[in-house]
Amino acid sequence: KTFVKWMFLATITGGFGGIVGSLFNMCIVYVTKMRNKNSWLIFLLPLGGLLIVFLYRICKMDKNSGTNNVIKSVRSEEDVPFLLAPLIFIGTTVTHLFGGSVGREGAALQLGGSIGEMTGKLIKLNENDMHIIRMCGMSSVFSALFGTPLTATFFALEVISVGIIHYSAFIPCLLSAVLSYKVSLLFGIIPETYLLPYIPLLSMASFFKTIAIGIVCAVVSIIFCVGIFGTNKLFKKWLRNPYLRIFVGGVIIVALTFFLGTTDYNGAGMNVIDRAVLEGKALPYAFLLKMIFTAITIGCGFKGGEIVPTLFIGATLGCVLGGLLHFNPAFSAALGMVGMFCGVVNCPIASVLLSVELFGSGGIVLFATVAAVSYMMSGYYGLYSGQKIVYSKLRTEFINIYTKKEY
Amino acid sequence: KTFVKWMFLATITGGFGGIVGSLFNMCIVYVTKMRNKNSWLIFLLPLGGLLIVFLYRICKMDKNSGTNNVIKSVRSEEDVPFLLAPLIFIGTTVTHLFGGSVGREGAALQLGGSIGEMTGKLIKLNENDMHIIRMCGMSSVFSALFGTPLTATFFALEVISVGIIHYSAFIPCLLSAVLSYKVSLLFGIIPETYLLPYIPLLSMASFFKTIAIGIVCAVVSIIFCVGIFGTNKLFKKWLRNPYLRIFVGGVIIVALTFFLGTTDYNGAGMNVIDRAVLEGKALPYAFLLKMIFTAITIGCGFKGGEIVPTLFIGATLGCVLGGLLHFNPAFSAALGMVGMFCGVVNCPIASVLLSVELFGSGGIVLFATVAAVSYMMSGYYGLYSGQKIVYSKLRTEFINIYTKKEY
Repeated sequence: KTFVKWMFLATITGGFGGIVGSLFNMCIVYVTKMRNKNSWLIFLLPLGGLLIVFLYRICKMDKNSGTNNVIKSVRSEEDVPFLLAPLIFIGTTVTHLFGGSVGREGAALQLGGSIGEMTGKLIKLNENDMHIIRMCGMSSVFSALFGTPLTATFFALEVISVGIIHYSAFIPCLLSAVLSYKVSLLFGIIPETYLLPYIPLLSMASFFKTIAIGIVCAVVSIIFCVGIFGTNKLFKKWLRNPYLRIFVGGVIIVALTFFLGTTDYNGAGMNVIDRAVLEGKALPYAFLLKMIFTAITIGCGFKGGEIVPTLFIGATLGCVLGGLLHFNPAFSAALGMVGMFCGVVNCPIASVLLSVELFGSGGIVLFATVAAVSYMMSGYYGLYSGQKIVYSKLRTEFINIYTKKEY
Repeated sequence: KTFVKWMFLATITGGFGGIVGSLFNMCIVYVTKMRNKNSWLIFLLPLGGLLIVFLYRICKMDKNSGTNNVIKSVRSEEDVPFLLAPLIFIGTTVTHLFGGSVGREGAALQLGGSIGEMTGKLIKLNENDMHIIRMCGMSSVFSALFGTPLTATFFALEVISVGIIHYSAFIPCLLSAVLSYKVSLLFGIIPETYLLPYIPLLSMASFFKTIAIGIVCAVVSIIFCVGIFGTNKLFKKWLRNPYLRIFVGGVIIVALTFFLGTTDYNGAGMNVIDRAVLEGKALPYAFLLKMIFTAITIGCGFKGGEIVPTLFIGATLGCVLGGLLHFNPAFSAALGMVGMFCGVVNCPIASVLLSVELFGSGGIVLFATVAAVSYMMSGYYGLYSGQKIVYSKLRTEFINIYTKKEY
């Protein structure tokens, strides 16, 4: 029956997704180490950009919208082109090697979508089941990359059409995510979890401070989404040639890095996140700089995700807000991560589960609060223009609109 | 703006819901103690039944479907009659005092729905906002009774139309639930949490054993839903007079209690749940007896919820399955609770959060697995015939059907 069929399909997708995700994860970790050892690599960023544009051009994928393409394919009959997978794999690795400011989850979704597509095509699934298997792919690669199987599952279920959850994909996505997670452990990947030094009790004070952090996260989320899209539009307007565009963008990142004299804002910046969440330390303007670096890197054409930068921004922003509100800065950093994540992807359930998988169950009510506030106050902005918000954030109304990026 | 408006409304609803919920909770605890001290009280169960039928009759509420009425009112323009609140309060207390086998969450939802309705009417909200404030009420009383604010929030959001989540009610419900939870703490109510003695690692063995428990939970869920409804139908067919019906039902419960020589199956039976989850001990047929007791108590007309009996059945069933599968029985009992809960209410997200709020984050992936399997395999059965399942459990298809209770 259906259960056995999906056990089988999810095992294939999860296993394959787990292997690809783990290899990708190891590549990113490896090139990050290389870059940290050889600081001159940053100079090659503009050249790396040229390579990325060249690869996408010869594969005729330069018009493809990547992650949005995958998100839309779950809702429609559109196919995910297979070439997306190797291109985003190489593109993201190159961007990380030379120090562009990106994450890896955009790649996770695109790799996953392609893997799901391939598996589905191979077994000749009907269109209805193709939707589910694409979600399986997304959930499995996400899980291998972040080590958070439940967040991966609900992210895949929730991100496509916010407000509707296709539970028919629950078992398939969960099986894929868990298997993929186990595969990533076999590859020796250690999932990120943070042991928070201090979790405040649920009191009126901590509740209202959390609400305040949620509101700021919502505002910064909007600025971030609008900023990324706006930078991209400006780049396209001024520099019509994509080679020139990415080259100039690369040069700006190199110049900024030198001007600041730190590589904190290049690559994923996990060390900065760790410092904020574990020690409660962050520079007051770090979140702003990360936003600028990320907007330029992605805006000019480099490849990679926006989620890890979002978590970086949330952690450093939260940390600073904690100081201002007389709230534990490490815990505030964790709240900021969850609040920013929810603000840009519009996925409250995945956000709550992310908090449990990263930080444990101690502060779950406060994490849910920051997610709820950030969700409600961040308007209909979002990172993925392929995403639809099905119900109004303020009324029980059916609206079914695409998320915006423009102000 | 909307946020401030709902801060205000949710505070009123949450505060009021918290007070009513706490008083109700204390009543139930008090009458349970009374019954344990005075074992002769059980003999009065048939008379208590007569009182319940009499009260509902003089208030002309004997045709009202209670919980289903509240669930439907969130989706439609129907009103929740105010009288529902005092009647269900008294009815449930009487049933507990004399040892009927019921829970208290049916009462929570009805009390909450009425409180939301009243607050909304008082402030003259429009119909759109009435839906939200009814959910607030449900979430606040649920939260005060069970001490699980997040589960209460998502239960209210999820239970009405499974597959659709009206996030516009997220902030209002969460605020109400948190406030109500704090109020219940002020009343000296200590929330149930269980420190599991052992949490197995996520391995292939534990994963497949969890799937097996999920499948059994799904089957037992269907039997339970069909059983409650079937018993009610049989009672109605054979005994058309409601006084006679509840009297006979009461006599049967008294007779069964004497025959078994234990009061384990009367009332909520929290002590049995505790024994299963903390010590891993349960009689192999306990779940079956609890099903029979509950089906008779509710089927003949007594008042109260089905959730606590469901948790009782899940805990004892899980415990026994743990023994058969060579799986830690206490942990299996916890899995059984979550699996049965998900099977009868069809709310996977609330189930996952319930597991976090009761048992912490250690076994979250296994709890999600048991919920997912139980959800998928339990068909379109459910406790609440007012509930709609909007998307197919097996395909990405829009179906929008009411849950069934008949086989």
